[in-house]
Amino acid sequence: MKVSELGEFGLIDLLAKMANASQDNQIAPWQQLLIGIGDDAAAWQGDASIQLATVDSFIQDVHFPSGIAPWNELGWKALAVNLSDIAAMGGLPRYALVSLALPDNTEVDDVTALYTGMIELAQQYGVAIIGGDISSAPLVAITITILGNTKSQDKHILTRSAAKPGEQVAVTGELGAAAAGLEMLTKKLQFDPQATACFKGAFLHPYPRIAEGQLLVEQGVKTAIDLSDGLISDLKQICKASQVSAQVKIDRVPIEPMVKAEFGEKSLELALSGGEDYELLFTGRAEVIDRVKKAAFYPITVIGEIIAGKEGGVTLIDSQGNPTDQGKAGWEHFTIR
Amino acid sequence: MKVSELGEFGLIDLLAKMANASQDNQIAPWQQLLIGIGDDAAAWQGDASIQLATVDSFIQDVHFPSGIAPWNELGWKALAVNLSDIAAMGGLPRYALVSLALPDNTEVDDVTALYTGMIELAQQYGVAIIGGDISSAPLVAITITILGNTKSQDKHILTRSAAKPGEQVAVTGELGAAAAGLEMLTKKLQFDPQATACFKGAFLHPYPRIAEGQLLVEQGVKTAIDLSDGLISDLKQICKASQVSAQVKIDRVPIEPMVKAEFGEKSLELALSGGEDYELLFTGRAEVIDRVKKAAFYPITVIGEIIAGKEGGVTLIDSQGNPTDQGKAGWEHFTIR
Repeated sequence: MKVSELGEFGLIDLLAKMANASQDNQIAPWQQLLIGIGDDAAAWQGDASIQLATVDSFIQDVHFPSGIAPWNELGWKALAVNLSDIAAMGGLPRYALVSLALPDNTEVDDVTALYTGMIELAQQYGVAIIGGDISSAPLVAITITILGNTKSQDKHILTRSAAKPGEQVAVTGELGAAAAGLEMLTKKLQFDPQATACFKGAFLHPYPRIAEGQLLVEQGVKTAIDLSDGLISDLKQICKASQVSAQVKIDRVPIEPMVKAEFGEKSLELALSGGEDYELLFTGRAEVIDRVKKAAFYPITVIGEIIAGKEGGVTLIDSQGNPTDQGKAGWEHFTIR
Repeated sequence: MKVSELGEFGLIDLLAKMANASQDNQIAPWQQLLIGIGDDAAAWQGDASIQLATVDSFIQDVHFPSGIAPWNELGWKALAVNLSDIAAMGGLPRYALVSLALPDNTEVDDVTALYTGMIELAQQYGVAIIGGDISSAPLVAITITILGNTKSQDKHILTRSAAKPGEQVAVTGELGAAAAGLEMLTKKLQFDPQATACFKGAFLHPYPRIAEGQLLVEQGVKTAIDLSDGLISDLKQICKASQVSAQVKIDRVPIEPMVKAEFGEKSLELALSGGEDYELLFTGRAEVIDRVKKAAFYPITVIGEIIAGKEGGVTLIDSQGNPTDQGKAGWEHFTIR
């Protein structure tokens, strides 16, 4: 079987089983391991706090089309998507290792611009770039590892596997602008300056929701994921890991107003399946979500609820309360669409 | 300027300066950082021991020619070269994060074979694979991050920057067999079964010298690097980081006897510049090296000495005591040769 037939998530499941089985027979040192393969980051118990580690590759023509993003924005975004995984665990990012693959004819100025963008974001979030490697390759690939930790007083982290039936499903911020930005840049769509800046910023210059992740932990949220593949796809990941199902009321989904204005009916699809918004999707009992709303300086919107059902399905509900299939699945590597 | 004109090491210097300058203005949390960009691994002070992190990419047609290695050996080697960096710091590897880029038409069986090889090595060295990511890409790239630590009683690590004039330069094991293996596999050279197995094993199935790195720390060695790019190139890295120079007596270099037998005069070049032996190159005062020799269950050979000279040059000395230019520079990405 080809990996394109199995799909990204099937392949991850298979390899995770192999890795986990090989470790079941062993004892130390990963008795301290709290979360292995399958969440936004791995986690283990350190002496003073929980330690976190995550890695993500950012590959030319796969994660970003050639030529649509300036190099400094590539650097910013490659780091941002990794910091977002730490945000989704409720942790603080601390160190970054950067593995760069570059064609021989890459301009040195482009590489320093890449680093300038990465460093700009790193400084804002208190992250130090402490190592990495550089290889020649036929295409640009940026693989970043982030090491982080929880605050020492935090007794828990945000996982994908703690959602329970009856909990509300909520999301930070507004959705769809990153996917609108990708459409705009690849299809060379024209909008007014304000919309152009909004879509471009959302796609190229996302801000990882570190403070929001911290707030979720403080207010007692247990379950979260960051929105990278798309709301439906990422919610399915929570459902699968938690062995529950979910309903989303599509008229509650907070679509970025400029996306709604410019994309009309298509805006729902961009918000549900576009991906790359890097907001946090989380679940919790109503009183927990209310506490989050009161404490947050940032929009928090309840969009649905967790229901029983081990099959991990996500049902979309229209304004009349009926199931609907508006919006399609999110991004999965290898799958043909 | 193109990166091919600046070269890998020039580019690393440039980016390290940018990253370090950006961190000079900041205070916490990397006050605890001990080693940043430029050594085999990054290191910082943890609560009970020194923490280590390293990343290396292993890219099709760059680090390994397509089709000459079975997938399980690719997995073994990709992990081994990373564990070797932890060995070169005198640390114990603990966790691995694996970022895989794979073409859509990759066979799932090949990917599981890759993981089988990786897990086989991980189990032997007590390493748990705790995370990673998978992307589709036009070629195979395996980027592995290793997290490790020192034993809690170890008060120091092995760096590249502690070599001092008057110290001996020594190496573990015997050299040249990995480069012989690459020559054999790419040029389809024929040897007797014993030599074939030796060369193939050295190239595809290296054993990271974790125990040897531990022994070096215990016996008071302060300076080491692992042999990845080639003895001369890697010794230059020590010299540059330590602001010293070095002399190597070429008739002392421990060439693997089967390489000598099969490759004759060329064997010296394979041992000095072939690279990928993943033995440890280290320096220390004569009494320290003597202690290492006594304590080791593995060949330790003194091959030269550290001399004054901030330019970081490595001079080869022939059996008559004269400088020679036998053997060429080691591997550097982007440079045209």
